[in-house]
Amino acid sequence: MNGAESLIRTSVDAGVDVCFANPGTTEMPLVLALDRVPGMRSVLGLFEGVCTGAADGYGRMTGRPALTLLHLGPGFANGIANLHNARRARTPVVNVIGDHASWHLDADAPLTSDIESLARPVSSWVERSASAEALGSDVARAIEAARRPPGGVATVIAPQDAQWEDVSGPAAAPKFVEPASPDRDAVAATAAALRAGGAVVLLGAGGLAEAGVRAAGRLVAGTGCRVLLETFPSRVERGAGLPAIERLPYFPEQASEALAGASAVVLAGALDPVAFFGYPGGRSRLTPDGCPVVPLATPDQAVVAALEAVADELDAPEAVGAEAQRIEGLPSGPLDAGKLALALASAQPEGAIVVDEAATSGLGWWALSTGAPRHTVLSLTGGAIGQGLPCAVGAAIACPDRPVIAFQADGSGAYTLQSLWTAAREQLNVTVLLCSNRAYRILQVELARAGAPEPGPAAQSLTGLSSPELDWVALARGFGVPGERVEDAPAAAAAIARALAEPGPHLIEAVL
Amino acid sequence: MNGAESLIRTSVDAGVDVCFANPGTTEMPLVLALDRVPGMRSVLGLFEGVCTGAADGYGRMTGRPALTLLHLGPGFANGIANLHNARRARTPVVNVIGDHASWHLDADAPLTSDIESLARPVSSWVERSASAEALGSDVARAIEAARRPPGGVATVIAPQDAQWEDVSGPAAAPKFVEPASPDRDAVAATAAALRAGGAVVLLGAGGLAEAGVRAAGRLVAGTGCRVLLETFPSRVERGAGLPAIERLPYFPEQASEALAGASAVVLAGALDPVAFFGYPGGRSRLTPDGCPVVPLATPDQAVVAALEAVADELDAPEAVGAEAQRIEGLPSGPLDAGKLALALASAQPEGAIVVDEAATSGLGWWALSTGAPRHTVLSLTGGAIGQGLPCAVGAAIACPDRPVIAFQADGSGAYTLQSLWTAAREQLNVTVLLCSNRAYRILQVELARAGAPEPGPAAQSLTGLSSPELDWVALARGFGVPGERVEDAPAAAAAIARALAEPGPHLIEAVL
Repeated sequence: MNGAESLIRTSVDAGVDVCFANPGTTEMPLVLALDRVPGMRSVLGLFEGVCTGAADGYGRMTGRPALTLLHLGPGFANGIANLHNARRARTPVVNVIGDHASWHLDADAPLTSDIESLARPVSSWVERSASAEALGSDVARAIEAARRPPGGVATVIAPQDAQWEDVSGPAAAPKFVEPASPDRDAVAATAAALRAGGAVVLLGAGGLAEAGVRAAGRLVAGTGCRVLLETFPSRVERGAGLPAIERLPYFPEQASEALAGASAVVLAGALDPVAFFGYPGGRSRLTPDGCPVVPLATPDQAVVAALEAVADELDAPEAVGAEAQRIEGLPSGPLDAGKLALALASAQPEGAIVVDEAATSGLGWWALSTGAPRHTVLSLTGGAIGQGLPCAVGAAIACPDRPVIAFQADGSGAYTLQSLWTAAREQLNVTVLLCSNRAYRILQVELARAGAPEPGPAAQSLTGLSSPELDWVALARGFGVPGERVEDAPAAAAAIARALAEPGPHLIEAVL
Repeated sequence: MNGAESLIRTSVDAGVDVCFANPGTTEMPLVLALDRVPGMRSVLGLFEGVCTGAADGYGRMTGRPALTLLHLGPGFANGIANLHNARRARTPVVNVIGDHASWHLDADAPLTSDIESLARPVSSWVERSASAEALGSDVARAIEAARRPPGGVATVIAPQDAQWEDVSGPAAAPKFVEPASPDRDAVAATAAALRAGGAVVLLGAGGLAEAGVRAAGRLVAGTGCRVLLETFPSRVERGAGLPAIERLPYFPEQASEALAGASAVVLAGALDPVAFFGYPGGRSRLTPDGCPVVPLATPDQAVVAALEAVADELDAPEAVGAEAQRIEGLPSGPLDAGKLALALASAQPEGAIVVDEAATSGLGWWALSTGAPRHTVLSLTGGAIGQGLPCAVGAAIACPDRPVIAFQADGSGAYTLQSLWTAAREQLNVTVLLCSNRAYRILQVELARAGAPEPGPAAQSLTGLSSPELDWVALARGFGVPGERVEDAPAAAAAIARALAEPGPHLIEAVL
């Protein structure tokens, strides 16, 4: 057994069973090991951002890390943006980055670069294996680090000689830690704040699991408090039967307004909220000055248990879930973002996983889908666009029996469109609902906010995608995914239903 | 005038006139400044790797930096791989990375990350502007740094408040440094080594300009020495009328063989060569043990002047250029890499810029094109694949009157295929000759070298692109580029000629 086999064997033994890979020469021993060690599924991405985004989606749906297998600094660099999103989502991910043989590093060969410097900004744990024998134990420690509450990105740099040299066997199994129990004082303080009236509970991280959403609903039922979700949840359960919860708005002035007048802000897995961007004359914090912040549970704690403890202490009744609501009689005529949101809300099936990178086109869908069949939403946690399609690939591999809908903006989708090929190769049940508004619309909104309602030619050119128009049906076909174009709401809903009824991936270009 | 306008104005005044951009909210003041300051062409890329690769191609062809305009850490990260290639090519490039307003950094908003840690591995110079007033002088220093011989990647981090706040005006012009003159002792030592017979001159960096190639040819004519190019030249002039020069081979055993028996290795802009990758039992250095290395000129010195000084000292006559050679009567039948290389060599026109990321498919072309009409070759300097299509975009913007041929492998091409859209939008004269062998063929070669001639299913899956096959004509159409598929050599040559005869971009999928 060589170091590479030890790494793969140790990973499989620790319950890691998928490897999203785009290997090169320095990873060949690991590629060969994937054939020698049973139990690891290898999934090729045509670009590393596909691999890392898929690992993020997979980790969000399973709670377990996938491996990514990446090629030195430049290959890893291509995966950084989606690891940034995974870091913000606190998704467990283990990167394995091949590097030159240790004795070849000083030669400064063309592909040599400072991998650690690239890896640290997105990793909670980075280690370069010093020997073949260390490779197994390093990946075990990486898996431990990735699964340490609240979850994180861990990175092992695997020199090629450590991969090819012989070792005694796989490493000892990693030890997993449970999230810390709720803090009794925090529970009491939260109960007191809620009893006093006027508090807002901000729900995030593990609190967005079904039990957390239900417990938050009990707080509303018991005290009349308000509950808001963090703006970009990593993963949240919602739909008919679950308490309806609004999101904290995106723009800071709207978010501040949502929190204005709160007697206290209770943080249940969420962080004290800050503006996504700073604006002239603006500020970072969104919580009103002087408003007490009650930290019920940090993301690394057992948020659900903390919410349930508060609800119990308040003797709160069961929550009332959102009523099932079916949207009938969709408007016809040319699609716009509102009609598209209606079409999706009307067509989405029970158990769907909706990966929401629809940006401005998706804003209306949240409220419209409150009473839609039960579904899971994965959102763009770190703002690094190009996350939706890869994340959908990973979610579909994690949950082969659930329909995955990638609700996808066009500008962001073009970043990592190679994901479509992996969806085709693996025949994943992913329906891409591509919002073709042919613009970076959010930037056009930002230009208006910056006082340029009539941008000049450079600003128009740098925020517009209409010249030439992307033909998404052709792009999908190029990667082996069947597609169709829709131009009104009933056609969009029908296309979604058709796509979901057929196994394998589909793309629907919704012209807005 | 605000900081953003000062940055753009200072750049334009310093001769920087193209900005390859994919901006976001934190770059909006700079986007608005691009409309207020005349003289800077804005070119949108649908992905940052397109922008940085285009800046590399532009800088190689003009010797001047373009700006890239990128969105915080994650947007920059998407451009790192091609900046790695630019760093290895020593191309002048100036990155401008927008970041949060300085007062918003501590809030750790979702898009916050350690940009410096990401930028340093690919930058010879990194600075975060401390104020609006500093923005202009920082970009001036970045331009200086990028143009400091031998050329490099310089990075300015531009906080949003520094962009929007008022300043007194643009900054003082940067001061440019000329490459250091040839070292007289090195010239004498080189002349002595060449007179002694049996030496090999390794040509690289600035030595690959037309005058350098001619001077190297004089050394051959005068002393019978051998001249070899570094394996992956940033930019080299060649073709009929110029001395024919072979490249140092890629695989280390072949490269060592090429240098075996040399009485001395003269480094003329090239570095002492090392293996691209380390292999078990192998070594890093390629120069034979005990063989004297004569450093004639480092890449930051005036390599051409050094070569000419040696030739003059040797009283070497003018070199004999390669004879013009036209390939007639191409073989028919299904294409293979050899026939495709013949087709390209027969069809390439006078003055072509050939961007060579054809990987294994392109190996035969070098020798076949020695007598082709004069052309420039840009190659993959840093091994970070996905360089060819963006580099072709940048070269075409730099040289609108020259035909650009992107000789492109399929696996690498899929990395940054969004480049096709920029080629369509800007109506660039780029002909993409896409080598569709439906494999990462080099990795299949490496698997065989690693002792696995019959790879298992995982290794096959991770190195094969045939399931499903990419339809490159559909992909091109999706991005607005007309395409056609060819399956034999005469059809390939005819398609290249047709594509070059029509303005604007074209893609030819050569099925291998």
